[in-house]
Amino acid sequence: MAKHSISTSPDTPDSDLPEMQILLDGQHHGSLGNRTDWHIRRGTWTSGASAGVEVIELHNGELSLCVLPTRGVGVWKARLGEIPVGWNSPVSRPVHPHSVNLHSRNGLGWLDGFNELICRCGLANNGPPGQDDGNPSPIESSLTLHGRIANLAARDVEVFLDEELNAIGLTGVVEESTLFGPRLELRTTITTRIGEPGFHIRDEVINRGSGPTELQLLYHCNVGEPFLGEGSALEMPHRQVCPRDSRAAEGIATYPDCEGPTAGYAEQVYFYEPLPDQQGQSVAMLRNQAGDRGFSVAWNPSQLPSFSFWKCTQDLPAGYVAGLEPGTNYPNFKSAERQRGRVVRLDEGATFLSELQIGIHPDRKSVQAMSQRIREIQGASEPEVHAMPVEPFCPVG
Amino acid sequence: MAKHSISTSPDTPDSDLPEMQILLDGQHHGSLGNRTDWHIRRGTWTSGASAGVEVIELHNGELSLCVLPTRGVGVWKARLGEIPVGWNSPVSRPVHPHSVNLHSRNGLGWLDGFNELICRCGLANNGPPGQDDGNPSPIESSLTLHGRIANLAARDVEVFLDEELNAIGLTGVVEESTLFGPRLELRTTITTRIGEPGFHIRDEVINRGSGPTELQLLYHCNVGEPFLGEGSALEMPHRQVCPRDSRAAEGIATYPDCEGPTAGYAEQVYFYEPLPDQQGQSVAMLRNQAGDRGFSVAWNPSQLPSFSFWKCTQDLPAGYVAGLEPGTNYPNFKSAERQRGRVVRLDEGATFLSELQIGIHPDRKSVQAMSQRIREIQGASEPEVHAMPVEPFCPVG
Amino acid sequence: MAKHSISTSPDTPDSDLPEMQILLDGQHHGSLGNRTDWHIRRGTWTSGASAGVEVIELHNGELSLCVLPTRGVGVWKARLGEIPVGWNSPVSRPVHPHSVNLHSRNGLGWLDGFNELICRCGLANNGPPGQDDGNPSPIESSLTLHGRIANLAARDVEVFLDEELNAIGLTGVVEESTLFGPRLELRTTITTRIGEPGFHIRDEVINRGSGPTELQLLYHCNVGEPFLGEGSALEMPHRQVCPRDSRAAEGIATYPDCEGPTAGYAEQVYFYEPLPDQQGQSVAMLRNQAGDRGFSVAWNPSQLPSFSFWKCTQDLPAGYVAGLEPGTNYPNFKSAERQRGRVVRLDEGATFLSELQIGIHPDRKSVQAMSQRIREIQGASEPEVHAMPVEPFCPVG
Repeated sequence: MAKHSISTSPDTPDSDLPEMQILLDGQHHGSLGNRTDWHIRRGTWTSGASAGVEVIELHNGELSLCVLPTRGVGVWKARLGEIPVGWNSPVSRPVHPHSVNLHSRNGLGWLDGFNELICRCGLANNGPPGQDDGNPSPIESSLTLHGRIANLAARDVEVFLDEELNAIGLTGVVEESTLFGPRLELRTTITTRIGEPGFHIRDEVINRGSGPTELQLLYHCNVGEPFLGEGSALEMPHRQVCPRDSRAAEGIATYPDCEGPTAGYAEQVYFYEPLPDQQGQSVAMLRNQAGDRGFSVAWNPSQLPSFSFWKCTQDLPAGYVAGLEPGTNYPNFKSAERQRGRVVRLDEGATFLSELQIGIHPDRKSVQAMSQRIREIQGASEPEVHAMPVEPFCPVG
Repeated sequence: MAKHSISTSPDTPDSDLPEMQILLDGQHHGSLGNRTDWHIRRGTWTSGASAGVEVIELHNGELSLCVLPTRGVGVWKARLGEIPVGWNSPVSRPVHPHSVNLHSRNGLGWLDGFNELICRCGLANNGPPGQDDGNPSPIESSLTLHGRIANLAARDVEVFLDEELNAIGLTGVVEESTLFGPRLELRTTITTRIGEPGFHIRDEVINRGSGPTELQLLYHCNVGEPFLGEGSALEMPHRQVCPRDSRAAEGIATYPDCEGPTAGYAEQVYFYEPLPDQQGQSVAMLRNQAGDRGFSVAWNPSQLPSFSFWKCTQDLPAGYVAGLEPGTNYPNFKSAERQRGRVVRLDEGATFLSELQIGIHPDRKSVQAMSQRIREIQGASEPEVHAMPVEPFCPVG
Repeated sequence: MAKHSISTSPDTPDSDLPEMQILLDGQHHGSLGNRTDWHIRRGTWTSGASAGVEVIELHNGELSLCVLPTRGVGVWKARLGEIPVGWNSPVSRPVHPHSVNLHSRNGLGWLDGFNELICRCGLANNGPPGQDDGNPSPIESSLTLHGRIANLAARDVEVFLDEELNAIGLTGVVEESTLFGPRLELRTTITTRIGEPGFHIRDEVINRGSGPTELQLLYHCNVGEPFLGEGSALEMPHRQVCPRDSRAAEGIATYPDCEGPTAGYAEQVYFYEPLPDQQGQSVAMLRNQAGDRGFSVAWNPSQLPSFSFWKCTQDLPAGYVAGLEPGTNYPNFKSAERQRGRVVRLDEGATFLSELQIGIHPDRKSVQAMSQRIREIQGASEPEVHAMPVEPFCPVG
């Protein structure tokens, strides 16, 4: 032996997870839906930008889901069998919020920690940074990209099994509050049924402060390959679609379609007015060209009336990704959204509820079933496609 | 059992403290003042915004005191029997300084971590944020609200018992230093005698740098119910009192009196010139309307010549609180204080000393005794009450 | 016993290191070069500004070297026998990057954590803060002093022994990346041979992003007493030397010479064009007046063509220090360096390599040998000494 090396950290370079401990599993806590191959594990990274970040893995026997309580209970990534669900950000591992200065990079510091499959943008604001002088809460006037919630750690995190639903999950509480400003509390529950190729997010946001307050909430749901690739397309029932800006308008003729990894590609964003089914649900799916991989998000537009489609098909090393983004609003600057009535006013003590159902479609049959559902919701109605940015989607003129 | 949950953190949702370990107690380390029901415990939160924050509880048999070495050795809260001493900030638990960006919120980021019974404002500056171009240390020109000291962690923390004084306590050291700037060292000792309804803070601030440096230090002592309520009043011997601004001037006729929780109340601040007794001590007490709950701060105006009374009687969810604030200065912007000679110049190697005695008055008798003492110090002298902001208290014109 | 105290932290006030654990040593892992008195230890501070900072000590039997993986794998300090190698910054202990807000102090927040013997300045930028509107990566336009790398924590840290080289060392990886910006990866190896009065740093910086990116890298190698003192001088073969500014021009007549600790001294910086030997190596040594203590840095100017000499001989409490700074560039504002062709353009996937050899010269003989080598490289060539700042060293006019 000429050279002998030892790692100083239990973080394992060969895995993207730290050392994990079982919290609940089928061996010790009984079968769910006649299966015992489920488990819930927990670990905390000890090195690099991830030091101190806690991860909880929910494994329902088929789907594994990694949740980050330390990063606002976002969903870092998932895996269905051999299919990775997520994307490869230039920010390779979860970043501790203490390493993220939201004010750096001229207010774009949020990007230094962004690599999740799903992260929330909010709660007091989302959208680009800037000075929001019309904010009814003056202490909230200095806005940074996509707000604070993704970089606040949760307390009161619990994991659970539910024998009635044959499900496992976790709950957590995140506070976004300050003196002389908003006092918002996020209570989230993330659940996955045993064997289910998907999971459910149920969020309550409570105004714990005095008097009404403003709320913005957008779910940044991001995937790369194998869902995204050349010829991938977004399927979604919609009434209208509008390009965010002149860059997006360039591609309006093919707005649902995605390119392969393209060096120097500048992001294109399309604002959708979703069309719900008769139960009030809408759904969006990004599926690949072959039609055998799909990623879907179902939600209730009465809760989240705005939907944005983020095409960011830059080269792989730069981060090849597309985002499905249901939200209370479009990610314009907050003052523009306020003027267009798309900022939620939450009364003292009131609760805002939103729910997302995430689906992974690993084969042709599953993709086709979801495509069929989407076509049925769309029905005979023809979406209105705006060639250029128009009101009320975008601030124009 | 349909649902089985387990918490992922030893932080106990039912308590506001983390898991605690005994460091010293009467069972193992002997009686003090013939009592063995005292103890010193230590714990560290593991979740949420409090993750990594250390708390030390000093329990003298009657009074329990929670000190936060991680937050500049501030006093988070206390409890005398069943009486809570502190306030309910919208920021519900101690916030790790790494979560506090002092520059956010246009320099008001300090408020994101503010919930203590007592925290220090300083050491290089206190008061509002801004650009202090007259600062003799150019690297200190970009000021944030109330400075750095409350968001710096202590080292060399020790707890102790003192058989001569029948007291328990702790010491700690906090460095506020940088290259090309001030190099200030806070050495604090917090002591409580066995059975005493109060505690003592003794602070030394040492200039470890080269040449003289500036120092500002203000003790933000904050209480809510049951000391604060409708009809509560500040009692304090004083020569003069001056409203900070036109908002405070509105209430000058009732400057010592407090309102009940009032939605939309905007803070009012009054600047006092304290009147000391013949030993050089002054004291301020906030007592409730019934006269059976009081919170007092005694100090030496030769150390801390300025006193500010902060009425922040907003609605309970917004943070209902009043502050008793002895300081080297009034919390005007630092340049205004410098121009009025209220910034301490501390020579190289010199030590600034200040001491505070905190008293909890849990019944009519104790409140009356303190009222009597205050009346005696005031004696026949009539305080001068300024109806409007005047020099030298406030920068005028 | 009147007073009984216990420390709440295993950090030992009497030592400047935390509790340390042996990772590798001669007792358990065998002799190297026939010596068993070497070891590698690891510890993590638990209190104060250092809480969470990991330190690895490499002790080669003669030289002890403390490396900080948490602070970009910088070298905090070293010791050769009884000779301390480093300096006494006003920032007395290693500061966790989470405590450093690079944007505070008008972009000089980096100074709040600066106390290393060697720290890197980069990777996307070094030099003073400011708005770099010509940056090809717009997200990198808001520059803070000396960039991010010294305040980013390493992952995949390993320590090793090498029986072929009779050396011990460590490796680590630091990522400096963001979405829509540079994606740089530092892979460092720090090695010291058994019994060697020095150590070696080998850094690879890899562009993991899409397309070319900019790189700036400067090694801030800093020492105080006993290498620095009145009459200490920098010896170094050079073609040209240029004062950075009018302050440095004041001292151009004695540019290699250092003053003793001087209250109120304002830093002077000299930019050198190094002269390499026939193998392409150059070397700089700071040696004391007596000629029996020297600190040298050897490097390859084809990798690091610029060298800056930082004289900061202020009073001891303020931080008495001189810096030997080989770099890709001079520490002017990045846009000035770009205009003068001194910003590295690193192609996609390409690796930038730099190597430093640090030498400690503990006696007259060792100092004289290095002086001799330096004189030989200089040979008969006369350095050109510019009395005032000139192009292309400095932006003029």
